[in-house]
Amino acid sequence: MIAKRISEKLASGSMIRKMFEEGNRLKAIYGPDAVYDFSIGNPDLEPPVEVRNAVRTLAMSEETGIHAYMSNSGHQVARDAVASHLSRISGLPVDSSAVCMTVGAAGAMNAVLRSVLDPGDEVIVLAPFFMEYLSYIDNHDGKAVVVRTDDHFQPDLVAVAEAITARTKAIIVNSPNNPSGVIYDEETLHRLDQLLLSQDHLIHIISDEPYAELAYNGKSVPSSLANLTNVIVCYSWSKSLSLPGERIGYAAVSPRHADKAELSQAIVFCNRILGSVNAPAFFQRVIETAIDAKVDVANYEYRMNLLYDIVTNAGFRCQKPDGALYLFPKAPEDDVAFAANCAKHNLLVVPGSAFLCPGYFRLAFCVSEKTIRGSEKAFREVGQSYGLIPG
Amino acid sequence: MIAKRISEKLASGSMIRKMFEEGNRLKAIYGPDAVYDFSIGNPDLEPPVEVRNAVRTLAMSEETGIHAYMSNSGHQVARDAVASHLSRISGLPVDSSAVCMTVGAAGAMNAVLRSVLDPGDEVIVLAPFFMEYLSYIDNHDGKAVVVRTDDHFQPDLVAVAEAITARTKAIIVNSPNNPSGVIYDEETLHRLDQLLLSQDHLIHIISDEPYAELAYNGKSVPSSLANLTNVIVCYSWSKSLSLPGERIGYAAVSPRHADKAELSQAIVFCNRILGSVNAPAFFQRVIETAIDAKVDVANYEYRMNLLYDIVTNAGFRCQKPDGALYLFPKAPEDDVAFAANCAKHNLLVVPGSAFLCPGYFRLAFCVSEKTIRGSEKAFREVGQSYGLIPG
Repeated sequence: MIAKRISEKLASGSMIRKMFEEGNRLKAIYGPDAVYDFSIGNPDLEPPVEVRNAVRTLAMSEETGIHAYMSNSGHQVARDAVASHLSRISGLPVDSSAVCMTVGAAGAMNAVLRSVLDPGDEVIVLAPFFMEYLSYIDNHDGKAVVVRTDDHFQPDLVAVAEAITARTKAIIVNSPNNPSGVIYDEETLHRLDQLLLSQDHLIHIISDEPYAELAYNGKSVPSSLANLTNVIVCYSWSKSLSLPGERIGYAAVSPRHADKAELSQAIVFCNRILGSVNAPAFFQRVIETAIDAKVDVANYEYRMNLLYDIVTNAGFRCQKPDGALYLFPKAPEDDVAFAANCAKHNLLVVPGSAFLCPGYFRLAFCVSEKTIRGSEKAFREVGQSYGLIPG
Repeated sequence: MIAKRISEKLASGSMIRKMFEEGNRLKAIYGPDAVYDFSIGNPDLEPPVEVRNAVRTLAMSEETGIHAYMSNSGHQVARDAVASHLSRISGLPVDSSAVCMTVGAAGAMNAVLRSVLDPGDEVIVLAPFFMEYLSYIDNHDGKAVVVRTDDHFQPDLVAVAEAITARTKAIIVNSPNNPSGVIYDEETLHRLDQLLLSQDHLIHIISDEPYAELAYNGKSVPSSLANLTNVIVCYSWSKSLSLPGERIGYAAVSPRHADKAELSQAIVFCNRILGSVNAPAFFQRVIETAIDAKVDVANYEYRMNLLYDIVTNAGFRCQKPDGALYLFPKAPEDDVAFAANCAKHNLLVVPGSAFLCPGYFRLAFCVSEKTIRGSEKAFREVGQSYGLIPG
């Protein structure tokens, strides 16, 4: 008695969810300390002190109307803070009228996709990618066109060019990437932009950037606004300020976007009708104050290096991540079978197939140092069982 | 370059928005104190002290993980609080597994509609109604079937019966009603339920209840769970706790719903894929503590009576509202022309056509007592100009 299309999706389930359930089963049997769960990308650092102070100051203030409705696009003070932050990092004059505060990046992406897609329009996604994108596109009657990246998980521009049709309405880019940890470099972004601009119709670039501040190995993340023309930034403070549960983010249309005025209005409208109405009021105000703060990125980098060493010492081939919260090593056999085998060693990993990239597996390193260190023996055993290292 | 279907909606705009813009124009000319703006239903009371204390306690606590992800369905403590609240008011055993915390009632309705609608499915809405319902239904490829209520704005069951087809998947009820202020009585709900149960397929009843606690004239609002069978409650604390900006609400499936297990799962899934992911974390915890609190309803009732007396003394015919935040008097001429004429007297009202109920106009009484008292002269002038009272 529910919708057929939803019933089908519920029945198929998600691989990440299956790993989650398997993890709960194993933890019930062996105890939580004996299960090494790398399946969930849940940011585990506390928010920086600037956030905590902003929350406390606002909570204790005598100001009225803190929890009231505001314009659907958000508090002007929050939009101003975002606009000036984006102007500073991009070198472009971003106006607050192009910024809509949203219920996280997922809320932003849904509002943007609703704004641009008519039924049957195509959206290019670059595998590996976060599978929820398929639901977001499907929500708005779009058709996902999956294009593989190259051997280093960078966009393959020949493959993108081949995938473009008259119905291509948008492309989703996600850098630093979940699950590969790759940062798309400036040169690649520039060539992608030229390719898209050379088409005879406009193709929106939807840039999903929740990991923008999480860069390692001395790398930084090129500004999407500086390097891409018809781009809409979809951002969340889930990772940079460790506020994933609060659902606070924004959509920002580039000042160079060919249709910025109407698109900005459409996003605000769609943010409203999809049920968000507006981003949560209290945390918009927190953001206004704490927008320049950041979680302890070095802490994530430390754990990334720790897990990277354990995994590669166990014989697995893995590109070292430059950003985000994941390792994405090569699986020594079919990735779904490999993940099942790992579970026998109480190691929970997500098969690459869950990101439409079979042959790999994902490890979230936002887990405790104890879990990471504790997993060393299990990784060595698995590596040995595949003959990757001597037994 | 945006979606055609969204471009069309932006072009047509909403009447409430047009009144808002006209209001800004008038306020710029005459000053805000000389414009009597009854167009926006923005709850203007501060949250009760229990909310304020809960916000402060949580902000000052040393607890970790307050802002982290939780299950997509929400914090278990918040779901438990909702389930026991609903069990108490309905007399039915509501389990927390049937409760999904959402981004307000609008977020809840979108998740529910996505869960039940396949393309082309029909949803009955009872006019007058909040026009955003049309967008919510359209978002999920449904078809709205508008059915007029009777002369007292109660559901007309003969008309509902005539509107039901094999494709009818749901009916939306909203009591206390925006804009009429009517509470659907128990007898009517019971007869509506019998009508729906007598059909040869299941029809979901989506009960939008943000005004459930705002009842006047000694009336109370019958429990939808107690009186309707296949019902899903969509609730928001926007009005009862004056938290509209925080976007905090829930969807709860009745324990008597024929498909409660799968539907409850589907709602959590749709809440996730539509981009909410989960309801805002901090305010879920606030709700856990403050769920039994309420804004000063007597204050709203006082202003309702004040405005009701002014409007009826100016000669307008108006059913006295039993709930919600609006008067819905009869317009003495075409309602759109009437609203335009009111604006000439610096009176901002919304035509009934904006609720698919021409011939009436809506006045929000959640405005300052000063504005209400100040409007008396303007209402009398308008009443005189139509010959409703002597000149």
